[in-house]
Amino acid sequence: MTGANLLPGCGRTKAIAVLAALSLSACTMTVVEAPAAPTAPAAAAVPSVPMGQQWLYGSAEGAISIRQTYAQLTSYALAKAKARPADSVIIDEATGKPFACGNKPLAAVFDADETLIWNIGPMRWFALTGSEFDAKTWDQWEKTGTGKAAAMPGALEAMAALRAAGITPIANTNRSATNAAGSEQTLAAAGLGEFKHGETLFLMGDDATGSSKDQRRATIASRWCVVAMAGDQLGDFRNAFNKPEAPPLARRTMATAAPFDGLWGNGWFLFANPVYGPSIRGGFDDIFPPETRWEPQDQQGAR
Amino acid sequence: MTGANLLPGCGRTKAIAVLAALSLSACTMTVVEAPAAPTAPAAAAVPSVPMGQQWLYGSAEGAISIRQTYAQLTSYALAKAKARPADSVIIDEATGKPFACGNKPLAAVFDADETLIWNIGPMRWFALTGSEFDAKTWDQWEKTGTGKAAAMPGALEAMAALRAAGITPIANTNRSATNAAGSEQTLAAAGLGEFKHGETLFLMGDDATGSSKDQRRATIASRWCVVAMAGDQLGDFRNAFNKPEAPPLARRTMATAAPFDGLWGNGWFLFANPVYGPSIRGGFDDIFPPETRWEPQDQQGAR
Repeated sequence: MTGANLLPGCGRTKAIAVLAALSLSACTMTVVEAPAAPTAPAAAAVPSVPMGQQWLYGSAEGAISIRQTYAQLTSYALAKAKARPADSVIIDEATGKPFACGNKPLAAVFDADETLIWNIGPMRWFALTGSEFDAKTWDQWEKTGTGKAAAMPGALEAMAALRAAGITPIANTNRSATNAAGSEQTLAAAGLGEFKHGETLFLMGDDATGSSKDQRRATIASRWCVVAMAGDQLGDFRNAFNKPEAPPLARRTMATAAPFDGLWGNGWFLFANPVYGPSIRGGFDDIFPPETRWEPQDQQGAR
Repeated sequence: MTGANLLPGCGRTKAIAVLAALSLSACTMTVVEAPAAPTAPAAAAVPSVPMGQQWLYGSAEGAISIRQTYAQLTSYALAKAKARPADSVIIDEATGKPFACGNKPLAAVFDADETLIWNIGPMRWFALTGSEFDAKTWDQWEKTGTGKAAAMPGALEAMAALRAAGITPIANTNRSATNAAGSEQTLAAAGLGEFKHGETLFLMGDDATGSSKDQRRATIASRWCVVAMAGDQLGDFRNAFNKPEAPPLARRTMATAAPFDGLWGNGWFLFANPVYGPSIRGGFDDIFPPETRWEPQDQQGAR
């Protein structure tokens, strides 16, 4: 037993605080001010790997969860492709209805970070150095990370199966358009095949709407019949869902209300990411509904 | 913005360390000695909700991930029921082959904790009080938690759909046989329907093999044709996978090797749980493969 590894260290606290505030996929990169909180002695020699990263990047369970979602997506997309659907799974925000498929070629749209690839290079760096997320380091990662990002479990098999069925994988990511070459090379080096900027790779800066992916989705849907869409953050599906400032329960209610409830696992596929993003927030009253409050009988009233 | 909520506090460190070492589903309840690590001042007034709990219990993304898996399981089980399979999805550990279905009635086997229900009562208590997991509190929870555990997102719909298709949901959990009444009532009060000890509810203590679920699975498979099996920990599928002491990569390789690789999402369904269990462990060298090491160019050699 390496018991020490089970103990999340306090040295990483700051790094997590800011990673939690960052959505790589659909947020502006807001660095949240960490309040003056109890901090560990600076001398903490060896930081620990954050729990979310242990589960997602390291564990059997994390890998299986990702594989399952890839299998679910692939099976859904292949069945849809056979039947040639009338509608894309992308919603036209102007009308609230899905874009029409017409005779467009088939495609599946993926976020990149923590959807096609795991960014274990910079995540290790931030955790190891106890440093906060910073845009400059991330920019370097987009430029120089080729060969250091890992295709997510099941992603290679999914890309192969989709392409064999005539479905083109497309990436729609908030990586920067100025680093297009780096991201093309990173995806290719991970074994995921060709993603070409402007054709099958859409980046932040491609249009004037910043981190919202809606307009890029509309551009994609004007050219392709999109049979499946995947991401790890709500903004990968609709920018209207991307309200990191909303209380967790309100976000959850919004994203799982009709008619969207029927789309999850059924055209829209979300990959588990307990590592960063607007999903990682909330105090006790947000996370634990009052009706489920419980305390051990011998300690009642202790709090 | 409630920035303070984004900052995981150090006050919870100990609680997590021990929760991480605990598999509610298939481990002995080993309390790992936490090494003397940097601790926060005891005066930390308001602890924070651990990241994994924020994601799983509170976020839209966590709920959607769970719902997707329930939809995937239901769809698989209903298709299987129509075709009446020859084999259960439970492996006979004596032969290495699946148990035969014969003319047995159809069933789906679920772990209980973090598979059918979320244990937000005691999880909140441990986090709020900065206390460690302890068997005594957990025992009280099994006895008195009725009405305070929440059915997981999509679980009610899944139970209804399975029962309507003639598939009986069965729970196989490491809750204690001595608390059978409490667990029956907890599952019923969460809206999940009837689970009856010895018939559709199997507990630790039902046989002489302790926390291993293999013999209980064999008992279930002798009476039922099991078309789907679900859990949040590897031990919910085969006890041979339940090696918390193995390095994370070895566990992952073991659980995803042939012939088991084909079962995930295809008879076996794993629910995301980045909150506790043997999946939450590993140091930097376990979680980040050497070939993916990267550092920003301007800081190379800094570590």
